Amino acid sequence: MSGDGEHVGHGLPAAGGTAEESLAGGELAEFRAFRERMNREILDEGNLVMNRFFNLDGRAYESGALDVRTKELLGLVASLVLRCDDCVTYHLTRCREEGVTRAEIFETLSVGLIVGGSIVIPHLRRAVARWSELQAMA
Amino acid sequence: MSGDGEHVGHGLPAAGGTAEESLAGGELAEFRAFRERMNREILDEGNLVMNRFFNLDGRAYESGALDVRTKELLGLVASLVLRCDDCVTYHLTRCREEGVTRAEIFETLSVGLIVGGSIVIPHLRRAVARWSELQAMA
Amino acid sequence: MSGDGEHVGHGLPAAGGTAEESLAGGELAEFRAFRERMNREILDEGNLVMNRFFNLDGRAYESGALDVRTKELLGLVASLVLRCDDCVTYHLTRCREEGVTRAEIFETLSVGLIVGGSIVIPHLRRAVARWSELQAMA
Amino acid sequence: MSGDGEHVGHGLPAAGGTAEESLAGGELAEFRAFRERMNREILDEGNLVMNRFFNLDGRAYESGALDVRTKELLGLVASLVLRCDDCVTYHLTRCREEGVTRAEIFETLSVGLIVGGSIVIPHLRRAVARWSELQAMA
Amino acid sequence: MSGDGEHVGHGLPAAGGTAEESLAGGELAEFRAFRERMNREILDEGNLVMNRFFNLDGRAYESGALDVRTKELLGLVASLVLRCDDCVTYHLTRCREEGVTRAEIFETLSVGLIVGGSIVIPHLRRAVARWSELQAMA
Amino acid sequence: MSGDGEHVGHGLPAAGGTAEESLAGGELAEFRAFRERMNREILDEGNLVMNRFFNLDGRAYESGALDVRTKELLGLVASLVLRCDDCVTYHLTRCREEGVTRAEIFETLSVGLIVGGSIVIPHLRRAVARWSELQAMA
Repeated sequence: MSGDGEHVGHGLPAAGGTAEESLAGGELAEFRAFRERMNREILDEGNLVMNRFFNLDGRAYESGALDVRTKELLGLVASLVLRCDDCVTYHLTRCREEGVTRAEIFETLSVGLIVGGSIVIPHLRRAVARWSELQAMA
Repeated sequence: MSGDGEHVGHGLPAAGGTAEESLAGGELAEFRAFRERMNREILDEGNLVMNRFFNLDGRAYESGALDVRTKELLGLVASLVLRCDDCVTYHLTRCREEGVTRAEIFETLSVGLIVGGSIVIPHLRRAVARWSELQAMA
Repeated sequence: MSGDGEHVGHGLPAAGGTAEESLAGGELAEFRAFRERMNREILDEGNLVMNRFFNLDGRAYESGALDVRTKELLGLVASLVLRCDDCVTYHLTRCREEGVTRAEIFETLSVGLIVGGSIVIPHLRRAVARWSELQAMA
Repeated sequence: MSGDGEHVGHGLPAAGGTAEESLAGGELAEFRAFRERMNREILDEGNLVMNRFFNLDGRAYESGALDVRTKELLGLVASLVLRCDDCVTYHLTRCREEGVTRAEIFETLSVGLIVGGSIVIPHLRRAVARWSELQAMA
Repeated sequence: MSGDGEHVGHGLPAAGGTAEESLAGGELAEFRAFRERMNREILDEGNLVMNRFFNLDGRAYESGALDVRTKELLGLVASLVLRCDDCVTYHLTRCREEGVTRAEIFETLSVGLIVGGSIVIPHLRRAVARWSELQAMA
Repeated sequence: MSGDGEHVGHGLPAAGGTAEESLAGGELAEFRAFRERMNREILDEGNLVMNRFFNLDGRAYESGALDVRTKELLGLVASLVLRCDDCVTYHLTRCREEGVTRAEIFETLSVGLIVGGSIVIPHLRRAVARWSELQAMA
């Protein structure tokens, strides 16, 4: 959270994150503004456990033995089967930044659908709507 | 998904589904329009796994050793304990079409409440509100 | 479990529950002995909330607008999608006592499979193994 | 649900609950009105299992070996890891009434964050926003 | 599992699956024998929904826009956050067959740990123990 | 576990943890040995995200605005509603070390039962059995 160049999953957007800034859909912008404002309020509270967790959350998606794209797909499928729309939106946004294709997104979502079952479908609909929105923002 | 006679759970409304068409509440209509639009976008993508899953989802509620009413109640209680409001709305709509009574709905929801605990209560409130809305549309 | 007084779902077996007594498989008998012993220890503790909940748990499956068989199927599918093997075993035992057929069990489980996805499969395998065991005990 | 002095978790607000009445935020007031209206509709239905469960839900947070404050914190962390925003809002409201401090809330939420992982973060953001709203209403 | 025809994830091993046959650990062999026997019993029942779902489950991991390795990693992380030990074991076995490295497995599991939280740790321990067992079988 | 340096929840037992050493039940000892061995294998792998998470997991239960006892009760109820037996065992062990009473444990578990529903009962039984075992080891 302190280093430069560090992206923060579910956290504060990196300073100068131009790629993200240009995604200016209505609801999506609102979501990002709320996330940013609340992340700041949480981090400013100075709770050591929360602050370190937010930092670690960013680290988990950094390049290593697996590249960033693959890790973002892992985050996406995990978010889908756990049925967290905000988390899905976050990882879709990151996937878009990393150049993931529509076909790759659909295959990732299809694994989540099979693993998680029909209960995932409402989240799948919102995920696809969000992805189409992100593509339209190019 | 294209055959006649097939209803599609969490999917495209059957052609000529007059029963459902007449349920014209505000928010409910909006929910159904979004569901229909996104199901179409998903199916049109041509992802084999998703398309087959959507088809299979419809098949699971067809009459067999158990009748359609019982299967819809099974879908309802499963959706409630997994806390999926959209899925609950879908199965309540289907139950209404199948002539399930208010007492049967409440008993089904009460099983879900006991199995799933107080965490289910917010979804129970929305389920009851939705059922009353569906009844008022008769 | 069907006698007078109250039956306790996931609870103390009713005195004289002859149907269940005759189900004497190895592991199943062990499961039932542990359940009975621990239910007794829990109820003897005199925690008001727990004792009332155990009682209420039994009431939820009593005949009303829906019959006992249907309610046990509801309990079964809810237990499967929440992936609770012990709960599945309990409801399968009750279904067997109520004369539910193998085809009805499979259709109920198939709804749970579609709703809950492949993550349910290991529990489905154990459920089918348990059901076959219960049938063999006839 | 009928006795005096009984607070009802996830249920009808106690008569004369002046502390809660004064919490008049916009969305929060709307949430409370819907909860109250639907709780009434549910309880008026006369489903024995639901009515007893609602009553029992209140009892679980009464003072005993543990005081009310501690029990509300238990309800809060359980609601957070199960990712139920309405339940979190309810317990935050109760915590505020019981004089829980901001630091205590943050530490409780931090335990929920570690136990439940990053999937909890969107709910954590909403919980903190809600708590700040409740504090501003003092 | 890699032969022609369809491989069935969480399903019947393909005939001639030599790679898996050579993995002969004690508990692991027992797990695989039970899985195989029960999959056969389930498929032989002839329930259309179950049989099609088992088939579809295999299809979801076939090569497409994403390669098999990536899809198995997706299946692994989804299984971990949903805390299904048997599913984790299945995908670890498949990952081993596909030549995934230990570092890639640990990074995938680390994403699951961050997303799912400390509740995932007992499953993480078993996953690592299983992976070491699979490596020792080489 | 309370000594200087950091204690690791769900992690390596602190050196010289005499209180825990004396808890020598059969299955419990086996559980602890496996946990210790696998934690070591995981930490020795040197995955930064996992190692930091394990460290952070310990920090979350340290004394702060809330005392250690309260935090362990929070960990216990969260583990119960998420239905993680190993996590429940861990927190029960810690509660025993911290001098939590049987009545406090039962009230904590009763909150978990109400929040999580009957699906929690099998885990409740095992939790009570474990607590009685821990008490007998005094």
